[in-house]
Amino acid sequence: MATAGKVIKCKAAVAWEAGKPLSMEEVEVAPPQAMEVRVKILFTSLCHTDVYFWEAKGQTPVFPRIFGHEAGGIVESVGEGVTDVAPGDHVLPVFTGECKECAHCKSAESNMCDLLRINTDRGVMIGDGKSRFSINGKPIYHFVGTSTFSEYTVMHVGCVAKINPEAPLDKVCVLSCGISTGLGASINVAKPPKGSTVAIFGLGAVGLAAAEGARIAGASRIIGIDLNPNRFEEARKFGCTEFVNPKDHKKPVQEVLAEMTNGGVDRSVECTGNINAMIQAFECVHDGWGVAVLVGVPHKDAEFKTHPMNFLNERTLKGTFFGNFKPRTDLPNVVELYMKKELELEKFITHTVTFSEINHAFDLMAKGEGIRCIIRMEN
Amino acid sequence: MATAGKVIKCKAAVAWEAGKPLSMEEVEVAPPQAMEVRVKILFTSLCHTDVYFWEAKGQTPVFPRIFGHEAGGIVESVGEGVTDVAPGDHVLPVFTGECKECAHCKSAESNMCDLLRINTDRGVMIGDGKSRFSINGKPIYHFVGTSTFSEYTVMHVGCVAKINPEAPLDKVCVLSCGISTGLGASINVAKPPKGSTVAIFGLGAVGLAAAEGARIAGASRIIGIDLNPNRFEEARKFGCTEFVNPKDHKKPVQEVLAEMTNGGVDRSVECTGNINAMIQAFECVHDGWGVAVLVGVPHKDAEFKTHPMNFLNERTLKGTFFGNFKPRTDLPNVVELYMKKELELEKFITHTVTFSEINHAFDLMAKGEGIRCIIRMEN
Ligand SMILES: NC(=O)c1ccc[n+]([C@@H]2O[C@H](COP(=O)([O-])OP(=O)(O)OC[C@H]3O[C@@H](n4cnc5c(N)ncnc54)[C@H](O)[C@@H]3O)[C@@H](O)[C@H]2O)c1
Ligand SMILES: NC(=O)c1ccc[n+]([C@@H]2O[C@H](COP(=O)([O-])OP(=O)(O)OC[C@H]3O[C@@H](n4cnc5c(N)ncnc54)[C@H](O)[C@@H]3O)[C@@H](O)[C@H]2O)c1
Ligand SMILES: [Zn+2]
Ligand SMILES: [Zn+2]
Ligand SMILES: [Zn+2]
Ligand SMILES: [Zn+2]
Repeated sequence: MATAGKVIKCKAAVAWEAGKPLSMEEVEVAPPQAMEVRVKILFTSLCHTDVYFWEAKGQTPVFPRIFGHEAGGIVESVGEGVTDVAPGDHVLPVFTGECKECAHCKSAESNMCDLLRINTDRGVMIGDGKSRFSINGKPIYHFVGTSTFSEYTVMHVGCVAKINPEAPLDKVCVLSCGISTGLGASINVAKPPKGSTVAIFGLGAVGLAAAEGARIAGASRIIGIDLNPNRFEEARKFGCTEFVNPKDHKKPVQEVLAEMTNGGVDRSVECTGNINAMIQAFECVHDGWGVAVLVGVPHKDAEFKTHPMNFLNERTLKGTFFGNFKPRTDLPNVVELYMKKELELEKFITHTVTFSEINHAFDLMAKGEGIRCIIRMEN
Repeated sequence: MATAGKVIKCKAAVAWEAGKPLSMEEVEVAPPQAMEVRVKILFTSLCHTDVYFWEAKGQTPVFPRIFGHEAGGIVESVGEGVTDVAPGDHVLPVFTGECKECAHCKSAESNMCDLLRINTDRGVMIGDGKSRFSINGKPIYHFVGTSTFSEYTVMHVGCVAKINPEAPLDKVCVLSCGISTGLGASINVAKPPKGSTVAIFGLGAVGLAAAEGARIAGASRIIGIDLNPNRFEEARKFGCTEFVNPKDHKKPVQEVLAEMTNGGVDRSVECTGNINAMIQAFECVHDGWGVAVLVGVPHKDAEFKTHPMNFLNERTLKGTFFGNFKPRTDLPNVVELYMKKELELEKFITHTVTFSEINHAFDLMAKGEGIRCIIRMEN
């Protein structure tokens, strides 16, 4: 490649300050260092986590910064020591990496890589503690190792999943984060048996993906629970067969669900981040065999409370991070699920904008409209 | 049998009042009704649960009552409809039954039978709501469907596990309750992988059995945790390789264990009934793959509290009842484990008394001496 080893000048949407609209800038993107790859981003999408750290309420603010972590792109060049991917490969960036060498990566069960697990405070590359983005020599910080709101970005090779080059990047780009998280929470962690009943708490992108996962696993009743009844119509497309709005009932929703299901659901997946929903999701599973899975990211002062007898009656509670997918090992297979038409992604994509319209994607999310808005880097 | 269909007069140790020594009486034992069996008890042993309900602190007292639920015996006669066992069969009574027909019995995962799950308040047979024991026509109540402190007792057939007649009843009788509970908590629920590290909280009979289960499963480090250091010497015989007394440390025991194990144990089994130990047992497992299992019966007002992030970091919390063994289906196989010398039971049996000395077994337990005291019904 003509650009390999050289600084690339390109467009990026820079967040200069917390909560202020992103500003399109020409940035300089340094070449990838050892174990890094530089990727041309073709499609990216917006997730709540971007918005959360852009708002930076109650956090250490790291600005100026380039957000974005759901995307699809093509490797432009690679740094020293990179053998797993090569220029031209199609890849999905992932906010949490897989080094393949630590205790977690070597465990069959874990995806919480010691080296590359998500770190939302870090704005630099782990190799040399520096940023690869700059404007007039001043550093612009990274976000969760991905920073996909840029035409080119640099990532650690451990944060890049190489996928089937025939997969349409404008669709599979949504697999970088929330959709895989919800899907994996169901198929990898809750594992609903065929014909079982599953409760999904929270019908945002993550919860709808969890419903889709329960549908793929063969659950026959999928009960969607949300405080916002506007979510219910859409949720039918994702396999939800019934709905409960806790506000419609005087009784705790655990009891409502127990009555609907002869004692409790077989599996539940909590995708709200709300501590009450977490407790409800646990207490609504059937004794003897029920499994509840927590996905939502709780408030830092939240406390999970329940009577220990609820465990002794043979209920299981688990939590998951990125749906227990090991990003480099497993994401290519999730892409294949889509290619075989077992997993539908189109229904998650409700809007598309051009890169210059990126702030419109923020507006849609603020209004709670749609599920995923794809941002096309090229017009 | 000459006695079939007739009332049997025999000796029983009757608890007339809460906390008062048992009194040896001649009782009348009525013939078994439909789906019941009458069993000649040969060996029985004392468990904390007997003592707890005998003390009857803060409970609805059910007296006069015949306690006892760990035992081995021989079927004397069977009632109408009983086809699974016949006179002469060797059996272990079990305080929680298996009807084989309810949703729980039909689930591969559960042993919490809807019909016969433990009910410590009930002092009568479920068929007709009456007792089979009497003295001068006055009923003497049952305990958890077993009442093995009697030369003969009547049980629902669902509370009787038929075992290999070659198994020595004076040894395998201890499998009726606590030992199977701890053993199953490890081998059926925690399932430590070969070479893993397991923490056992509480080194009473149940905890020692959990350690034995971890040893059988192939764990290579088994860390015993108890507030009473007198338990440590004995625990070595059950596979414990290391010990921690939380009182010896200023730091929370979770942190002590994390330091000893490079981040946390692979599995933990809580066998104390203490809520702090339950929380510690959960929080001490490694993120990414750790599994904690609760066994101890908590105080009715206990509250399990933890930060939900401990779940999201891919820890699993489960509880078990009777080690997840289905009593009729699985206990015969546990007896076979003993017959193949994979499971050692002799080391659990620290004392033996005759039936007339039964109150001595209560004294030993009150003093915390030994693990199991076998009561021989015949001299
Ligand atoms: N564990 C991970 O790896 C991971 C990855 C991505 C997202 N997440 C988390 O998953 C959660 C869901 O993400 P999302 O993008 O779908 O969010 P979202 O805001 O789009 O959806 C959440 C839904 O939950 C509903 N809700 C809130 N409180 C509720 C309650 N008490 N009962 C029922 N419904 C309730 C809301 O009405 C909303 O529809 C967030 O907490 C997010 O941080 C976790
Ligand atoms: N779930 C079931 O099916 C089932 C069946 C039988 C017994 N149990 C329960 O299992 C538990 C153990 O039974 P056991 O007969 O072995 O009891 P035990 O009293 O002989 O042993 C308990 C041990 O725990 C220790 N301990 C207490 N608090 C502790 C703490 N905070 N940290 C560390 N150690 C602590 C004590 O010193 C003691 O050695 C009891 O709660 C009992 O009710 C449950
Ligand atoms: Zn790693
Ligand atoms: Zn995201
Ligand atoms: Zn049953
Ligand atoms: Zn017992």
